[in-house]
Amino acid sequence: MSEDAVFKPLAQQTIDLFKAASTATITMQLMKRGLRQMAINLRPMNPDATRMVGPAFTLRYIPAREDLAQPPKPTDPVNAQRIAVEQSPAGSVVVVSTGGELRSGTFGDILTARLMVRGIAGVVSDGGMRDAPILQTMNLPVFAVCPTAPPSMTSLLPIDVQRPIGCGGVPVFPNDIIVSDADGVVVVPRHMADEVARDSADQEHIEKFIALQVMKGRAIPGLYPPSDETRAAYKAWMAAGEPTG
Amino acid sequence: MSEDAVFKPLAQQTIDLFKAASTATITMQLMKRGLRQMAINLRPMNPDATRMVGPAFTLRYIPAREDLAQPPKPTDPVNAQRIAVEQSPAGSVVVVSTGGELRSGTFGDILTARLMVRGIAGVVSDGGMRDAPILQTMNLPVFAVCPTAPPSMTSLLPIDVQRPIGCGGVPVFPNDIIVSDADGVVVVPRHMADEVARDSADQEHIEKFIALQVMKGRAIPGLYPPSDETRAAYKAWMAAGEPTG
Amino acid sequence: MSEDAVFKPLAQQTIDLFKAASTATITMQLMKRGLRQMAINLRPMNPDATRMVGPAFTLRYIPAREDLAQPPKPTDPVNAQRIAVEQSPAGSVVVVSTGGELRSGTFGDILTARLMVRGIAGVVSDGGMRDAPILQTMNLPVFAVCPTAPPSMTSLLPIDVQRPIGCGGVPVFPNDIIVSDADGVVVVPRHMADEVARDSADQEHIEKFIALQVMKGRAIPGLYPPSDETRAAYKAWMAAGEPTG
Amino acid sequence: MSEDAVFKPLAQQTIDLFKAASTATITMQLMKRGLRQMAINLRPMNPDATRMVGPAFTLRYIPAREDLAQPPKPTDPVNAQRIAVEQSPAGSVVVVSTGGELRSGTFGDILTARLMVRGIAGVVSDGGMRDAPILQTMNLPVFAVCPTAPPSMTSLLPIDVQRPIGCGGVPVFPNDIIVSDADGVVVVPRHMADEVARDSADQEHIEKFIALQVMKGRAIPGLYPPSDETRAAYKAWMAAGEPTG
Amino acid sequence: MSEDAVFKPLAQQTIDLFKAASTATITMQLMKRGLRQMAINLRPMNPDATRMVGPAFTLRYIPAREDLAQPPKPTDPVNAQRIAVEQSPAGSVVVVSTGGELRSGTFGDILTARLMVRGIAGVVSDGGMRDAPILQTMNLPVFAVCPTAPPSMTSLLPIDVQRPIGCGGVPVFPNDIIVSDADGVVVVPRHMADEVARDSADQEHIEKFIALQVMKGRAIPGLYPPSDETRAAYKAWMAAGEPTG
Amino acid sequence: MSEDAVFKPLAQQTIDLFKAASTATITMQLMKRGLRQMAINLRPMNPDATRMVGPAFTLRYIPAREDLAQPPKPTDPVNAQRIAVEQSPAGSVVVVSTGGELRSGTFGDILTARLMVRGIAGVVSDGGMRDAPILQTMNLPVFAVCPTAPPSMTSLLPIDVQRPIGCGGVPVFPNDIIVSDADGVVVVPRHMADEVARDSADQEHIEKFIALQVMKGRAIPGLYPPSDETRAAYKAWMAAGEPTG
Repeated sequence: MSEDAVFKPLAQQTIDLFKAASTATITMQLMKRGLRQMAINLRPMNPDATRMVGPAFTLRYIPAREDLAQPPKPTDPVNAQRIAVEQSPAGSVVVVSTGGELRSGTFGDILTARLMVRGIAGVVSDGGMRDAPILQTMNLPVFAVCPTAPPSMTSLLPIDVQRPIGCGGVPVFPNDIIVSDADGVVVVPRHMADEVARDSADQEHIEKFIALQVMKGRAIPGLYPPSDETRAAYKAWMAAGEPTG
Repeated sequence: MSEDAVFKPLAQQTIDLFKAASTATITMQLMKRGLRQMAINLRPMNPDATRMVGPAFTLRYIPAREDLAQPPKPTDPVNAQRIAVEQSPAGSVVVVSTGGELRSGTFGDILTARLMVRGIAGVVSDGGMRDAPILQTMNLPVFAVCPTAPPSMTSLLPIDVQRPIGCGGVPVFPNDIIVSDADGVVVVPRHMADEVARDSADQEHIEKFIALQVMKGRAIPGLYPPSDETRAAYKAWMAAGEPTG
Repeated sequence: MSEDAVFKPLAQQTIDLFKAASTATITMQLMKRGLRQMAINLRPMNPDATRMVGPAFTLRYIPAREDLAQPPKPTDPVNAQRIAVEQSPAGSVVVVSTGGELRSGTFGDILTARLMVRGIAGVVSDGGMRDAPILQTMNLPVFAVCPTAPPSMTSLLPIDVQRPIGCGGVPVFPNDIIVSDADGVVVVPRHMADEVARDSADQEHIEKFIALQVMKGRAIPGLYPPSDETRAAYKAWMAAGEPTG
Repeated sequence: MSEDAVFKPLAQQTIDLFKAASTATITMQLMKRGLRQMAINLRPMNPDATRMVGPAFTLRYIPAREDLAQPPKPTDPVNAQRIAVEQSPAGSVVVVSTGGELRSGTFGDILTARLMVRGIAGVVSDGGMRDAPILQTMNLPVFAVCPTAPPSMTSLLPIDVQRPIGCGGVPVFPNDIIVSDADGVVVVPRHMADEVARDSADQEHIEKFIALQVMKGRAIPGLYPPSDETRAAYKAWMAAGEPTG
Repeated sequence: MSEDAVFKPLAQQTIDLFKAASTATITMQLMKRGLRQMAINLRPMNPDATRMVGPAFTLRYIPAREDLAQPPKPTDPVNAQRIAVEQSPAGSVVVVSTGGELRSGTFGDILTARLMVRGIAGVVSDGGMRDAPILQTMNLPVFAVCPTAPPSMTSLLPIDVQRPIGCGGVPVFPNDIIVSDADGVVVVPRHMADEVARDSADQEHIEKFIALQVMKGRAIPGLYPPSDETRAAYKAWMAAGEPTG
Repeated sequence: MSEDAVFKPLAQQTIDLFKAASTATITMQLMKRGLRQMAINLRPMNPDATRMVGPAFTLRYIPAREDLAQPPKPTDPVNAQRIAVEQSPAGSVVVVSTGGELRSGTFGDILTARLMVRGIAGVVSDGGMRDAPILQTMNLPVFAVCPTAPPSMTSLLPIDVQRPIGCGGVPVFPNDIIVSDADGVVVVPRHMADEVARDSADQEHIEKFIALQVMKGRAIPGLYPPSDETRAAYKAWMAAGEPTG
């Protein structure tokens, strides 16, 4: 793949198509391309804010060392965490590697609010999150393992941004596309984003038809995955204006 | 135990008695019979649909092998997953052994909808479930470990149905009785179902009386478990029409 | 520290200050004093009842032995569990060490109701809880790992009360102060309770001002942690009656 | 693949080729064919007996139920464990699925001795093994997770033989080829056994040449993986009688 | 059971019988009495020193708190760890509960040497051990999870001795009998020690006969467990002087 | 700390002092400086080669993506793994972060042999190692979690070198000092290496004296940690030529 393919901005159409596709559908499309391990198993901090699409801006923590990981002072030099908070582009998803460390939180309410004000699409961390009572009410998708009260420097040290990371066992490269819903978070490699978005939207459409048939009592064989007959019936259904009855 | 005892249909009275008993009560009755490990620790996909009683129809997966576990095609031969979806009897609970594999989902919305349409009482899996946003709204009890987006063939291969399985560390034989509520899922061996149902309902009844006494401020000793005096008061309370005041 | 400091009743002012502070803030204050591991990662049984402040009353279980851990009878001698249920002081938090054993529940609805009637502030266990459907509706903060149906004697044996315990990897001494919210549970050593309460309340106050600035679009550097200028602006804001606009 | 391919006896030449190949090499060959998850991470009970090649004879346990899993009596009916012990063919490897249950042992010294006397090539279990002091001295490759004293019926119930199983997260079909050394155990699907054996032996041969070059101080680039020049030098080395100096 | 039964010294004959029995055999005897969970899965620090019999002297740690768990000074008051090291009776086994904490070691070479000099029979800990290079050469059975370098106060705080504890998920009461070999460690409740010792020795004896028959090629059915015929042959073998040929 | 302090070569005297100190002693010295979490719990691949001292050269892997992680070809561009193998300085310890991924090996025999030929002091990985049968005989300290056969690209992708990493939950910065023995691996921050080395050697010396006293039967109180009297006796012992009798 060329550098161009990786770093050119995501087309609005691709974003729109991903917004119409579930992560269950996208993982099927990834599997059809040989990628079996692109789903990160995390839970939303606010169950009413799970839907998110955007390119990854990565942040990496390592385990804390007591002499380096101290309560913050205003005179501290800039670190990777602050770069992620202030310099990640609007529309991106901040994806954080903690190595699965749950004894302290990735961000709390103030840094998360700053990300929201700056127009970030969402946050994904394989660690914990602080200030869950506030995050539960914020209109920003935040995925993590669990709430956890202690501040990040209790056990984590920010090291760098925009390097490839592992997050919950999944490789995430800067600018990979992150999509999420209540099933969790999926990572789509940047260079295949356009075609995965298109095929996922197509799959969603025919599954809408299939679900209708199931509710009418039709059996699964021949229906799902669709046989040629089912595909023909699907086309007829589309031509008929997609009746739901 | 005779084959007859195991395979004869569950009496409606037994089903009704189980429907009046919590899994907390049923596990106490099982423990009184020496069975300490019959509870499966799982969470409901829809917290408003946790109550379920029915005989087990088992499905077993093994780990996937990449050349065998491919995206489905309509020409695929029938496999064990499809048998479970199309041939499990109405009223039964489909219980699935995944070996604890969480990287892909047991079922998604379409297969689960088919089970619901066919009159299945519920689904229990020691793996994940796809399409959580839809399952969360379906009026069917589905218990699993967590939502997970990827399709089952990402890491699972269906092998057989109606064989004894382990599910979440608990043995499940075909036709064992499955009961669930928000505490999780309990397995009652088929041959002791009738008496466990009866004794559980009895225990629920006296605990209703005990809970009333607790709220009135009575101390636990002599009350719970009930002494002879408490049992006498319980009978008097029943004779008086079970006053809640 | 003197015995006096540890065992004298908690001042009402300290309780009030803790009630105004999040566990995220309190763990920052503990970290400033060198204590990095005082948060217990547990979930509330009733997400609408997470806020709790009180001194710890500890209960310790060990793994069950089948001949000792039998269904309870009214003639059983008093054991440590029953002492915790009947003799823990009103206002205290019952903190339970199970060694992380999840195959059975710490308490069920009846014992928990008894604790609530007796005026206990809440319950914390590093094991499971029975009768989740009822606990989910009780107005008492109960933190545990998960719902679990089987009765405690299935795998747990109560041994003693008011001894130092480990609960979820955190040391808890009798009369340590327990504070909780949706981020989890925090343990504050008794002898530093007054000053941690005071400093936490101060930190909450200035963070309220900082959050207002973030929502107005101000960047994090110099704001959080606050520089001298920010602290001056904070004082001016207080003098002006803390305007939220 | 045809049934014939799967069930015809393994050729002696294939066995001999596998005996000359490490599991590290065989997993590289499997990966070249798209199979990434065929290695079972287990340790040998006798570190001096790790080398084994043979077709799998599978045995499946489920979790025990207290009323069914009792100390054995001579009048017990034949069960799956006893079939595996007495009827597995000479030369085969008995592969056991325990679901990762470690609280009891798969086999002890007497059943293992019987397997050895009957000419079994080895034993693989994703559980524990009893009588480790004796197994450590037996000249039979036995791979398991760890030693464990309790008899199998403490927590395991034998269910069936020669069905596909998961063992340590790897799918094992009856007659798949099992190869082991100190790196662990590898499963080769039956239908690709002949070609994997041949290519593994070829790879071992050239790596012997490469290792010689490394010890002489040659750098890795161009050497490993071998460039065309290295392959030519390899052929010259073979033609020269494979000098080790 | 009476207090007398629990606290009277273990008879030398019982010790001798246990020394002739493997833990595999003893767990079978415990299971026949309904106790399924009395084996602790640990590894010996010195694989050449695994055999140990003696009554338990228990020591309990809780998680460390940074202000209490500091490097030791000679002026520190006596704590529970030092009581275990200096006051445990000769012949006893020091059994330690760490709650599974592995980030620091239970004891190092100096305290272990002191225990050996004082005549302790062995050490069992569900945590780690320091100074493994030295412990590997000491002629004292020490069972733990793994070697670990940091001193105990890094993450552990000693609390009390001779209280009931959980060790690796197994209940251990003071004076319970501890027996170990390469299969791990088994706990025998004090009040059933004499009869378990006797029956274990009997079982060992007949299994010696059975193993001889297996090596002669006899099949398992009727042999193991022994039928009446096998028992008769066993008696004849004993009467004949137990020929090994 | 200055950059100079971190990057200047380690003095030979410091190396020699570390070679005379156990990791148990070094972790005590680190704890005295407030660092509680600097030990990595790993096992040596060759139990006869555990002793190693040298500055860290770090290598970081992330989880593999199937399209990027393919069997190596001689035309592959240089990657981070190959840089670590060919460009790490003689005398350094290659420390590898795998995120705990055990499904494939960090290095095999050929790359490890290349490191040994190049004069590397040792290898530390929080993942697995391939070709254990050969590594077990190599005179190079290699610490990892376990043997594992599959090649690294099965589940790992090399990303960068000489960046700070987490290895087994411990922060490792380039040029931190790595010391190991059979207790595992310890990381000493570069800027405190000289003084930790000196104080560790001092501690070892007095512990040699203390161990002699223990074997003579002296009790622990006043001896360990040493009182002023013990320290005086220690000095007298040194002055007397350190008699071992």
